[in-house]
Amino acid sequence: MLPEKITAYLADQRDRQLAELVDLLRFPSVSSQSDHEADCLACAEHLAGCLRGLGLTAELRPWRRHPVLIARSTDAIAPDGPTVLIYGHYDVQPPEPLDAWTTPPFDPRVRDGAVYARGASDDKGQLFAHLKALEAFLAARGRLPVRVVVLFEGEEEIGSPDLERFVADHADELRADCAVVTDSQFFAPGVPTITYGLRGLVYVELAVTGPAADLHSGTHGGAVVNPLNALARLIAAMHDDRGRVALPGFYDDVVPLTDDERDAWDALPFDEAAYARSLGVEPVGGEAGLPLLERRWARPTLDCHGVVGGYAGEGAKTVLPASATAKISMRLVPHQRPEKVLAAFGRFCAERAPAGVEAKVTALTQARPVLVPIDSPAVAAAADALREAFDAAPAMVRNGASVPVTELIQRILGVEPVVTGFGLPDDNLHAPDEHFRLDQFYRGIAASAACLLNLRTRLA
Amino acid sequence: MLPEKITAYLADQRDRQLAELVDLLRFPSVSSQSDHEADCLACAEHLAGCLRGLGLTAELRPWRRHPVLIARSTDAIAPDGPTVLIYGHYDVQPPEPLDAWTTPPFDPRVRDGAVYARGASDDKGQLFAHLKALEAFLAARGRLPVRVVVLFEGEEEIGSPDLERFVADHADELRADCAVVTDSQFFAPGVPTITYGLRGLVYVELAVTGPAADLHSGTHGGAVVNPLNALARLIAAMHDDRGRVALPGFYDDVVPLTDDERDAWDALPFDEAAYARSLGVEPVGGEAGLPLLERRWARPTLDCHGVVGGYAGEGAKTVLPASATAKISMRLVPHQRPEKVLAAFGRFCAERAPAGVEAKVTALTQARPVLVPIDSPAVAAAADALREAFDAAPAMVRNGASVPVTELIQRILGVEPVVTGFGLPDDNLHAPDEHFRLDQFYRGIAASAACLLNLRTRLA
Repeated sequence: MLPEKITAYLADQRDRQLAELVDLLRFPSVSSQSDHEADCLACAEHLAGCLRGLGLTAELRPWRRHPVLIARSTDAIAPDGPTVLIYGHYDVQPPEPLDAWTTPPFDPRVRDGAVYARGASDDKGQLFAHLKALEAFLAARGRLPVRVVVLFEGEEEIGSPDLERFVADHADELRADCAVVTDSQFFAPGVPTITYGLRGLVYVELAVTGPAADLHSGTHGGAVVNPLNALARLIAAMHDDRGRVALPGFYDDVVPLTDDERDAWDALPFDEAAYARSLGVEPVGGEAGLPLLERRWARPTLDCHGVVGGYAGEGAKTVLPASATAKISMRLVPHQRPEKVLAAFGRFCAERAPAGVEAKVTALTQARPVLVPIDSPAVAAAADALREAFDAAPAMVRNGASVPVTELIQRILGVEPVVTGFGLPDDNLHAPDEHFRLDQFYRGIAASAACLLNLRTRLA
Repeated sequence: MLPEKITAYLADQRDRQLAELVDLLRFPSVSSQSDHEADCLACAEHLAGCLRGLGLTAELRPWRRHPVLIARSTDAIAPDGPTVLIYGHYDVQPPEPLDAWTTPPFDPRVRDGAVYARGASDDKGQLFAHLKALEAFLAARGRLPVRVVVLFEGEEEIGSPDLERFVADHADELRADCAVVTDSQFFAPGVPTITYGLRGLVYVELAVTGPAADLHSGTHGGAVVNPLNALARLIAAMHDDRGRVALPGFYDDVVPLTDDERDAWDALPFDEAAYARSLGVEPVGGEAGLPLLERRWARPTLDCHGVVGGYAGEGAKTVLPASATAKISMRLVPHQRPEKVLAAFGRFCAERAPAGVEAKVTALTQARPVLVPIDSPAVAAAADALREAFDAAPAMVRNGASVPVTELIQRILGVEPVVTGFGLPDDNLHAPDEHFRLDQFYRGIAASAACLLNLRTRLA
């Protein structure tokens, strides 16, 4: 149980803590867009300032495109206890399409019990809950119950492309007894959740090039292979009629779901009709004949995210484009390997591209899928903390998304991470009107505080 | 033969006439983009002023989006002779992609014997040649050899969507003894050309809608049918593996090419290797096994021109878009009918759209294909004029592009049009660095003048 001094402090400081979160959400730290490079740096510096204000040491480490923030408690504020690695990311998805937002994505607004801004739920609101938990201990007691290493990165939304090397290079500095990765969601409102499996990711650009210049489709249509037509055929050929990915060898390393795990998922409080209503569409995608949660969590996918080429403006333009490029990603499940899937994708495109065009694949990001054991002391500590803060038993789930650091912590640091988070399924992650419910923020702070106390006991 | 007074005048006035063409090319009269509406109007007013300056009456008729310009000679400057309808269009294609232009599309530059600007060849340079021919007669002789009705429209590049009604409503005013449609090209450099067949056009937007909002592809991938994946499958299914359009009934009304016509095309001075070099790619598109010119001129096509939806910016965004839209056109050949093809397209999309998404087709423009007889007095007059101005025998060809007015003149006004033009095949129509060679401009003026003289004689 959280001490009364901590809960009283948190109850008293809510408005200020929310105002500070709003300040953090103002930074347009869009990691994928190069004109936001300075904004990402400013956001990281702001967070470093917050951590130094608490008495931690905090440093920005310049990295591939955006700095990694590492902070750690000193002996003065954390003289004993196990070391806990806390991970979050300060970068956000692009806010486009801008005109679909009710209020501007980087002008945060509080309404209907939530704060609306890009990054509110993914991941600034969640990582900030940890900071406010640290603050509560220091304000109420003058010290932390555990030693803390903070790892906030700025390239998660571009797939943490080089984080593997960073973690390997800084393994000594990041060494900890356990790790809390907070970049996840509740399974349902009122159901706090620990995520023990995440899908991996391979994100590519597939460029199909044809004529040397854009051509008039009347004059040359029927003579030239249209790169957009060819690209559509390539993408279409990547699935069979049953929704399975048709790249040769794609499923070779996929581990089938066990009956035990399937039974556990069947028992989850999942309302498929409510899910369909929230999507506005029947969830009939993916592989035919498989249960919905299995398709989302334990099966790989291949999705096109956008097509560039030709004319995308208003009205008609009769152009045969010189080239067309698709953004495509594949979500991977254990034990698929990104490098092997990427090679299969490249071979498929090279072999299937018709005469008259060329296909070229550029890999943007890769991450391995991950499963973590659910019987560790750290998981027990987090589960107890979530139960206390949210008055409900936590669910144990997988998630179809990718949080690359999770697998790196497991593989490179040799620590089993606990993946949790305080977002809700309808927070509009990666979409217009992203928001974070204030009640989840406040209870998330309490959960973080309780988790640190529990870790001190469990890992003693 | 053009009288010495005319040729001397033209030789003397070249620089001024080019400067006036440059002025005309400065108007960004992009008919498909609504923010260029005022520019289209200003361009039409500028041309009306030019025509009034010559002594013709000229009026703008407000039409669907951009005005139609009708001008006519008065008895004072054209007391006798047959009436010749001269058609051109003052609107231009969108200039995008802007960064692919060597110099800005609406800041015309003369270099290497050509003027570079959007619309230089299609169609401002060509219609302006007619104006300068009229000017030459009036300056040198004080009158025209024929009566003239000028029809310059501003919606050709959006497919002349409502020109049929305009022509029908103004049939009396447009009545003429023959028509010269100047919106075409030479078959090859040095080969002046009369075009006796043009393809028709159906241009549509195909929208595939799925979830109510953009979704995170990790969280929901495998649950939801991705509208971009579904759109790619729909587009891919529109062709079979031999390059034939797979819409049921699509070829029902297609008239096969006759042996005579195929033989005539075989005899044309067409260098397939040079054509491939100009494209930068082997011309292996369209229906397998058919000759190249047949595929370009006498066979229908289906081409995708652009895809809107998801993320088209820099880097990666893992979004499942709520919807995705493709711009698609079909070129039609005799005796396909746009309305029938459009219905077949709509049925195909409705039947083939997978569960979990909906397909909606919006027709943007339609035009019928056309063939005109090649043995009319007007064709003979134009052929003689081209031979004289360009020192070469004209070729008789079809063209794969669509000039909707041609079929309307034939069907509604009951006049057989002569389709010709002074552009060259490598003028980069509809593409970056569009240009018009100065020699073609100057000789085009002479050809127009000679044609008017010949028409006076041939139609006497």
